[in-house]
Amino acid sequence: MKALRYVAVGEAPEVVDIPIPKPGPGQILLKVTAGGVCHSDDYVMGLSEEEYTAAGYPLPMTLGHEGAGIIHELGEGAGAGGLKVGDAVAVYGPWGCGYCHNCSQGHENYCTNAQALGITPPGLGTDGSMAEYMIVDDARHLVPLGDLDPIKNVSLTDAGLTPYHAIKRSLPKLGAGTYAVVIGSGGLGHVGIQILKALSGATVIVLDVNDEKLELAKHVGADITLLSDEDAAGKILEITGGLGANAVFDFVGAAPTIPLAVSVAGIEADVTVVGIGGGDVAFGFGSINYDVAVRIPYWGYRNELIEILDLARAGKVDVEIQQYSLDEGPRAYADLASGSIRGRAVIVP
Amino acid sequence: MKALRYVAVGEAPEVVDIPIPKPGPGQILLKVTAGGVCHSDDYVMGLSEEEYTAAGYPLPMTLGHEGAGIIHELGEGAGAGGLKVGDAVAVYGPWGCGYCHNCSQGHENYCTNAQALGITPPGLGTDGSMAEYMIVDDARHLVPLGDLDPIKNVSLTDAGLTPYHAIKRSLPKLGAGTYAVVIGSGGLGHVGIQILKALSGATVIVLDVNDEKLELAKHVGADITLLSDEDAAGKILEITGGLGANAVFDFVGAAPTIPLAVSVAGIEADVTVVGIGGGDVAFGFGSINYDVAVRIPYWGYRNELIEILDLARAGKVDVEIQQYSLDEGPRAYADLASGSIRGRAVIVP
Amino acid sequence: MKALRYVAVGEAPEVVDIPIPKPGPGQILLKVTAGGVCHSDDYVMGLSEEEYTAAGYPLPMTLGHEGAGIIHELGEGAGAGGLKVGDAVAVYGPWGCGYCHNCSQGHENYCTNAQALGITPPGLGTDGSMAEYMIVDDARHLVPLGDLDPIKNVSLTDAGLTPYHAIKRSLPKLGAGTYAVVIGSGGLGHVGIQILKALSGATVIVLDVNDEKLELAKHVGADITLLSDEDAAGKILEITGGLGANAVFDFVGAAPTIPLAVSVAGIEADVTVVGIGGGDVAFGFGSINYDVAVRIPYWGYRNELIEILDLARAGKVDVEIQQYSLDEGPRAYADLASGSIRGRAVIVP
Amino acid sequence: MKALRYVAVGEAPEVVDIPIPKPGPGQILLKVTAGGVCHSDDYVMGLSEEEYTAAGYPLPMTLGHEGAGIIHELGEGAGAGGLKVGDAVAVYGPWGCGYCHNCSQGHENYCTNAQALGITPPGLGTDGSMAEYMIVDDARHLVPLGDLDPIKNVSLTDAGLTPYHAIKRSLPKLGAGTYAVVIGSGGLGHVGIQILKALSGATVIVLDVNDEKLELAKHVGADITLLSDEDAAGKILEITGGLGANAVFDFVGAAPTIPLAVSVAGIEADVTVVGIGGGDVAFGFGSINYDVAVRIPYWGYRNELIEILDLARAGKVDVEIQQYSLDEGPRAYADLASGSIRGRAVIVP
Repeated sequence: MKALRYVAVGEAPEVVDIPIPKPGPGQILLKVTAGGVCHSDDYVMGLSEEEYTAAGYPLPMTLGHEGAGIIHELGEGAGAGGLKVGDAVAVYGPWGCGYCHNCSQGHENYCTNAQALGITPPGLGTDGSMAEYMIVDDARHLVPLGDLDPIKNVSLTDAGLTPYHAIKRSLPKLGAGTYAVVIGSGGLGHVGIQILKALSGATVIVLDVNDEKLELAKHVGADITLLSDEDAAGKILEITGGLGANAVFDFVGAAPTIPLAVSVAGIEADVTVVGIGGGDVAFGFGSINYDVAVRIPYWGYRNELIEILDLARAGKVDVEIQQYSLDEGPRAYADLASGSIRGRAVIVP
Repeated sequence: MKALRYVAVGEAPEVVDIPIPKPGPGQILLKVTAGGVCHSDDYVMGLSEEEYTAAGYPLPMTLGHEGAGIIHELGEGAGAGGLKVGDAVAVYGPWGCGYCHNCSQGHENYCTNAQALGITPPGLGTDGSMAEYMIVDDARHLVPLGDLDPIKNVSLTDAGLTPYHAIKRSLPKLGAGTYAVVIGSGGLGHVGIQILKALSGATVIVLDVNDEKLELAKHVGADITLLSDEDAAGKILEITGGLGANAVFDFVGAAPTIPLAVSVAGIEADVTVVGIGGGDVAFGFGSINYDVAVRIPYWGYRNELIEILDLARAGKVDVEIQQYSLDEGPRAYADLASGSIRGRAVIVP
Repeated sequence: MKALRYVAVGEAPEVVDIPIPKPGPGQILLKVTAGGVCHSDDYVMGLSEEEYTAAGYPLPMTLGHEGAGIIHELGEGAGAGGLKVGDAVAVYGPWGCGYCHNCSQGHENYCTNAQALGITPPGLGTDGSMAEYMIVDDARHLVPLGDLDPIKNVSLTDAGLTPYHAIKRSLPKLGAGTYAVVIGSGGLGHVGIQILKALSGATVIVLDVNDEKLELAKHVGADITLLSDEDAAGKILEITGGLGANAVFDFVGAAPTIPLAVSVAGIEADVTVVGIGGGDVAFGFGSINYDVAVRIPYWGYRNELIEILDLARAGKVDVEIQQYSLDEGPRAYADLASGSIRGRAVIVP
Repeated sequence: MKALRYVAVGEAPEVVDIPIPKPGPGQILLKVTAGGVCHSDDYVMGLSEEEYTAAGYPLPMTLGHEGAGIIHELGEGAGAGGLKVGDAVAVYGPWGCGYCHNCSQGHENYCTNAQALGITPPGLGTDGSMAEYMIVDDARHLVPLGDLDPIKNVSLTDAGLTPYHAIKRSLPKLGAGTYAVVIGSGGLGHVGIQILKALSGATVIVLDVNDEKLELAKHVGADITLLSDEDAAGKILEITGGLGANAVFDFVGAAPTIPLAVSVAGIEADVTVVGIGGGDVAFGFGSINYDVAVRIPYWGYRNELIEILDLARAGKVDVEIQQYSLDEGPRAYADLASGSIRGRAVIVP
């Protein structure tokens, strides 16, 4: 089968031909219907040889931690819960041990045993979704997709799940008469805007660096859009009656965006830094509003993947995608790196 | 001044002429801009002489526990917090002592001292809003109305606050992929539907006894409307994939509606009986889903009145009203009793 | 191997000799170290032939839904998360499908697919823990026991988990200056009292029918004990300054206890009916305090089993047990039925 | 009457003789029974003339934002809620407007109008409790003290309320099997330890700089005490099985303690920086555990003062105090500055 693999540190990924894997006991073989392209892949492929090895990544490694497929074969003992060959599924990517206290609640993104046991997500240590077939290690890492179009919705497994996790935690603060600020209207941000509109009572203010990005924000429901220039913080304070926002989601996480995020957060607000743009958070008594909670989350919970797919099913989330074939995979990553993708890139084998 | 008062038990209320009251220290005199008509008034006027006296209601009593007005005069020491003559305000009706543990959080509807201290709401023990002027006992029982039309929005002080309180408590259960059932699309119900649409991710299913009521439900945003006949429970189970709803709000509370509400509640759902139609809740092991929480609330919190007014300000709640003059007040109550009011009746002095 | 089985409807269970089962792919074979005896077993064995069959229970059926053991053999593909032969474990009993929305959070007691898929707990449909060996269908239904004495702690898998689940949900209402009422100081109740003392700030008031039961309540930490006679409700209101309790846990659930539970619940309190004594809950406007939430739960979540075992590990929960051999199993059930067991009966193969 | 006042910037406070004030309408005159000495006073008296004026503090100013007293005289219209001359009360210090959204919930410490309206706490802008008599501006800023010894408990109005507010917010994370870290066992810390022991299931680990401070920690219930040296973080990770603590409370807030606090916080933990020792919080992706929430709170809510007093009433919180007369007030501040006070200093007029 064809697979898009990272073969050598510092080189672009390549499409290669490898054997179709066989599912062991408890494992499932998927015929992949779609795989999503993500900035995290870029981040990993940007590591030095030393960092890459230290992080425990193998070579070669099939890319793709966003995946959807059709169950093609069940390993022995797999699928006891009713899953069967032919079912359309999405892959829950942040694989954990399944037994620790966090995993017992489906919070496998926060598994406390994964590192010690060498468990890694598909595409981020284990062979991923950018191939004609992929192995999923356990049925609990699958979620029913049903009638949802896999190409349109595969990105929800990360670009949907990650903002969903961040936003869900802040929903108690986003009731009537509140304001949410979204920094960055890209792959994750444009989904986040839709989640906020669907589930909260907040007025959604979106910041980005150019009008094209802001146009996408408007298109997906932003109430107010602002260029993220030096006037942005002042405008937000004015819009919010001087009180600041009730929650701020920074999908960029770079050196200039994080201080902006902190500065526009009102008393008891949430600031969630989702993007891994390399910025640092710094604040002290007097330089941040009282009881603002600042956090850096990672991906999301198993049940939250079910929920974000339910939102799509209800027509409340629509991902902007650009479609590539497996052979065009290297170009997709190049387009991502150049910032030319509107929404999210998806590879269809 | 003119006032609509309940003068004799069992008699219709009358418009009478009484002196304009003087605000004492800490009190505020409002020039009333609107007063809302409510089923609770009917309930009180339906009590027997014995019940009425036992409940501690006085005679005569100016009706009206929903009120809005302009600050006309501040008693000595009143208004320290910035309130001033000429401000447009709404009245928070469930007056409490202000000092007990519940009142210290603004939960004055659940004051634990009110009964012992003889504190009663305006229109329900104390002279109310159906007059040209009314006394409010303390500035904390006022909420800024700002530019909001008092006539369109006065009903939010009860017909908005009561469903808002009930729904807010259930919002954590009404995220993505969930279902809310509303029984009764009248004065409270039609506001409740709008609150659910504005603040939750739930699909809203509304039940009522005729197509006219259901048409109002549709008009204000119901996703699905059903006649509340013997097939209703079965249809709800079908719509919800056999799981039942995540929250049920019974704005009728009568003998037939409560068992229906309980029967369509899924595991860990909320059932809130808001209407005081005289029905009883009864269930046991095996006759209700596990961990369904059944409650009977009363009115709402101080902060919740601010929040429901914020929803109106954002254009997310629009009350259907029928307007009457003070002289037409007795007719408004007659229309209410006959069920001919669409939405809510409002009296404008 | 020896097994205590329910063989014929209406007959006492018998100790019989059956082959040691073989674990299939993904399954685990435990060498049982302890199995707990529960009123629910009695309830099941009290069903008529018709009810028993309708409920889908098989015959013969090895009893025991509380279990602990040592991993004896791993089926193919089982134990990927680090479990290995020789590990001491406790069994999470309320088995679900593992894939539905509830199961994705570890809420397998509320699995929405179990019935359709024919999944039943050990000892309640599937062969249970009252045998020398037992099969567990999936590693996720095991929890590490570590150094904890299995005999002393096996009951925590139900008699600990069930009150823990009920109490955990009410902890936000049981802070400083609050009161919790426990009705019934038996197998579940005497563990519940300890959980309340360990995790809440509540003054714990315990009711039971005789001094011997109340002595156990005192022994495990009850602050106040009362005979559950006609004066009990009045005394509780007096103790709580007329406000009622903040949470009431009825571990009996019989016709006389449920109305008592409802009558002593203060505004916004929780009433949780844990016992399945056949009583009904009934209330209406005016006959229960505002916003009291009444619920009937079932067992508990996966993570909660880890947590209640952590409490035991910290020395904060100590189960009173009476120990029986497998051969004495029938007598254990007879003692349970006669009410002569102090705390909980445990069978040690 | 005698009053301890800050008279000139940079000078020690002085005991002076001033007239007993008269309560205006709605105000209350207290005969002070106790006033607490706090590091915040030191902080204010450490400001330069420029900073002091910019912050809006007056001169002279009677010190004391922790206060308790007996109601001596009610201004006109004050005390409608049942308060009367002779009642023993504690003063809720963080005065707000009483009308904004935060104040409507009793969150007056987070009033959004106070600054614009010039409302300041007693002892921090308005004349405070370190005098024979003091004015309280509104009855809602009083809480019943009842039989509680005012001298032993006056410090709870800040040194109790502040840690209580911080800890209450983290209680959902401090159930069975969890760990809380307290940095600093001084005036606030030694109360915080007791609150954690009374209300949570956490094992409480306390850090301080010398054995004497740690001895106080042990005395009030700390489970584990550690010197806050370079090995402290490693020891905490070892104690917590490598996972880190579930909540960290830094009552020092200095440059060395804050990074320590952040480094020992586990996934999804809370880090609350209560002390205003001048340190900064700084972290980024990879340098803090996922979804750790970092906050800087200020004082507490009205209801929380009632609750911390309830804890004292239940015998679960006991403040270590050193008592001074009003004349000894200047010495109390000198002792505080030199670090020689065990627990909290209290001035008794």
